[in-house]
Amino acid sequence: MSNVDITSIVKALVKDMKDGMDDMTLDAALSLADEVKRKAAEMGVRAVVAITNRGANPVLVQCMDDSYIASFDIALNKAYTSVALKMPTCALSDLAKPGASLYGIQFTNGGRIVIFGGGEPLYNREGTLIGAIGVSGGSESEDTALAAYGKEIFEKGN
Amino acid sequence: MSNVDITSIVKALVKDMKDGMDDMTLDAALSLADEVKRKAAEMGVRAVVAITNRGANPVLVQCMDDSYIASFDIALNKAYTSVALKMPTCALSDLAKPGASLYGIQFTNGGRIVIFGGGEPLYNREGTLIGAIGVSGGSESEDTALAAYGKEIFEKGN
Amino acid sequence: MSNVDITSIVKALVKDMKDGMDDMTLDAALSLADEVKRKAAEMGVRAVVAITNRGANPVLVQCMDDSYIASFDIALNKAYTSVALKMPTCALSDLAKPGASLYGIQFTNGGRIVIFGGGEPLYNREGTLIGAIGVSGGSESEDTALAAYGKEIFEKGN
Amino acid sequence: MSNVDITSIVKALVKDMKDGMDDMTLDAALSLADEVKRKAAEMGVRAVVAITNRGANPVLVQCMDDSYIASFDIALNKAYTSVALKMPTCALSDLAKPGASLYGIQFTNGGRIVIFGGGEPLYNREGTLIGAIGVSGGSESEDTALAAYGKEIFEKGN
Repeated sequence: MSNVDITSIVKALVKDMKDGMDDMTLDAALSLADEVKRKAAEMGVRAVVAITNRGANPVLVQCMDDSYIASFDIALNKAYTSVALKMPTCALSDLAKPGASLYGIQFTNGGRIVIFGGGEPLYNREGTLIGAIGVSGGSESEDTALAAYGKEIFEKGN
Repeated sequence: MSNVDITSIVKALVKDMKDGMDDMTLDAALSLADEVKRKAAEMGVRAVVAITNRGANPVLVQCMDDSYIASFDIALNKAYTSVALKMPTCALSDLAKPGASLYGIQFTNGGRIVIFGGGEPLYNREGTLIGAIGVSGGSESEDTALAAYGKEIFEKGN
Repeated sequence: MSNVDITSIVKALVKDMKDGMDDMTLDAALSLADEVKRKAAEMGVRAVVAITNRGANPVLVQCMDDSYIASFDIALNKAYTSVALKMPTCALSDLAKPGASLYGIQFTNGGRIVIFGGGEPLYNREGTLIGAIGVSGGSESEDTALAAYGKEIFEKGN
Repeated sequence: MSNVDITSIVKALVKDMKDGMDDMTLDAALSLADEVKRKAAEMGVRAVVAITNRGANPVLVQCMDDSYIASFDIALNKAYTSVALKMPTCALSDLAKPGASLYGIQFTNGGRIVIFGGGEPLYNREGTLIGAIGVSGGSESEDTALAAYGKEIFEKGN
């Protein structure tokens, strides 16, 4: 096998590894938001969808018509919380209850920690955390289902 | 029937539809505040009354003499909460309790979410949300009753 | 002309008036953001684009890959400022200078007032203010040009 | 050449590419802080040194004995500013002056933008932005010099 062959194999492999996205992109976020909005419409939910990158900085926020005004902050911070604590926000509900071990975490980070469902961390195919999604607009169980759906779709697709 | 006749019918109809108020006006808010203050005085409550438009921006705040200083913030944010979450604030009391599905919502939106009674969303006659009222100054049940009274009066009148 | 005819004429007319969009929609905002991102790419700018509705509540924010982290806040608040003060943010540069008549306005509204170019109010075809666009990511003159471009495109299209 | 050989060559190459650090690590930040503190001591400056990663999240902050209490916030936000706007903070001094094109940027991002010297963005050897350093504790020119020194050392070493 020639050096030229090897080089092209290496390049393809590296490209493939890079395709495995090491941080959220706007294109990936836009596709994901479309899927989640489609699902929300199907469920009759007017959702706000927020997606951050791995540094917890927002990549996009979209507010479906007639969604709650309060949902912008909530969706954005569900995404923030999920990437900043590396867990779905629904996992915090029990942990942050009065009497539980992390009670009080909701008062840290300048009010950005959300402790009810609707936020999910997002991983690339190597299992590296590269962002998060936050959904707000339905009941807590609808938001939880929509964020989980987004996570599933994203991790299949990337 | 002439075109002129038709035009004047159309104009009247459109005007009538517009009269169906698509956003809170100061005149409507002043009338509503007068009614609520009258009722508050009758009940012996020194109330602060806040009214927002559909975009959650304040249209008026009025503080009855000797009302609580703290009530300015509370009334304003009861109105904010009611329009931003499309529900009376008394509906949040249960949802936001430790252990309930939305526990934690009170820590979102920079401290603007109020989770006890006294805020009500306001709808026009087509059933479109066009603002909210927040009342603070009495007991929780007095504030709840005053906001509900305001909502009832408003929706009869507009 | 029969009453039925008149009714259908009236309905069409009213529908047409309503088509004249009385508030920003997510669809309109998505199309506008696409145009502005396309123009930004053409100019070599990695922009953050934010669009609010007439109530100054965000409808969308999109961050082009490798845009400035600081631009999320700036774009969002350029849009806020433009709708909240009904003027392009570049108009504030002179007004808010030390010594000028509105010096100090930049310290109001919890730090949300942006006083350099890149924000534009958006009007529907009847000339009613229905939202705003904020762009951040290039130089001040690039952001100003991109927001003005967005305004022009929007007002042609709606 | 066997496939096994090729694989090991590829792995080494990829490892080498990864060694080109795609985000700030604590080890790299500790080495960098040591150098900057050494230099500060030499100059008679009691410095606070802050280092963020590419997502503008802090990796470390170190306060030399008897440094200014106020410098914790300043150093941290100099680093934030440098990575969030991809420029040294000293470059903002002119841009953010009253009358200059970005006057007002210092009032955005919740007070986190610092517009005097002492912050520098940090790049890896491929020229990708992977973090920033902020130094506070000396005069403006000392802080500027210390941050520039840190940038130089970091970019030689990584």
